[in-house]
Amino acid sequence: MIEPFDDVHFMKKALQEAEAAFEKGEIPVGAIIVIDNKIIARGHNLTETLTDVTAHAEMQTITAAANFLGGKYLKNCTLYVTLEPCQMCAGALYWSQISNIVYGARDEERGCINLKTKLHPKTHIKGGVLEDEASALLKRFFIEKRNLN
Amino acid sequence: MIEPFDDVHFMKKALQEAEAAFEKGEIPVGAIIVIDNKIIARGHNLTETLTDVTAHAEMQTITAAANFLGGKYLKNCTLYVTLEPCQMCAGALYWSQISNIVYGARDEERGCINLKTKLHPKTHIKGGVLEDEASALLKRFFIEKRNLN
Repeated sequence: MIEPFDDVHFMKKALQEAEAAFEKGEIPVGAIIVIDNKIIARGHNLTETLTDVTAHAEMQTITAAANFLGGKYLKNCTLYVTLEPCQMCAGALYWSQISNIVYGARDEERGCINLKTKLHPKTHIKGGVLEDEASALLKRFFIEKRNLN
Repeated sequence: MIEPFDDVHFMKKALQEAEAAFEKGEIPVGAIIVIDNKIIARGHNLTETLTDVTAHAEMQTITAAANFLGGKYLKNCTLYVTLEPCQMCAGALYWSQISNIVYGARDEERGCINLKTKLHPKTHIKGGVLEDEASALLKRFFIEKRNLN
């Protein structure tokens, strides 16, 4: 069966956002939000550019998707994000009541799974989609950053 | 000893922000951020007005304080907030490395303490400052809201 709009398709779009962050010297994390196979929000990490710890990719896409929908709840929406959400972003996703979270790479230290951030009972979460690509981009960023300092 | 700039003084300013939220029909939570006894950011809950679950009082003051300071870390800063921060806001405060969090009322169900959100090791947190006033304002809001529906 051909599935043109599967998780890999959408995670590639989130990876494009992560690459845009990389080009700006930002830790490369990207996100998109999808409803009915349509992308309604895109964002990438802008914490350095905006001098703002709250400017994670997920936070921006949550705000943008709510703006698009005209309502603050993201029911029937799926967030695709290249890195497992942190406590802040998972906390925002809790409030949004989003239906699905799909992430790429695990974040063992600062991710919401090991830190046990509470998600909304209606939210499903799964990881590992294009994990290698997402991890490789993050590793390349930190290697280049180390070599510059 | 006269302490004109004690916790009660600053929490009263946060309560003024909570009252501003109340007047807008928002769940009444207010926050300020202080450095060297100077208020550098004020904010109140605007989730309904902005149709955005991320528009909590704390999130706005974190962004505003970083903007004022020209740096994203809130070292030597104190957040005064009328209600115990949620997971999202505590997660943002973790990233900010803020020195102190002072809250008014407890949030047993959705607050960061019972949900065990990780704070930065450099962050001190204490609660109960003008707790009765903060709680009374929240109770009044929910009673009025119930009577309107």
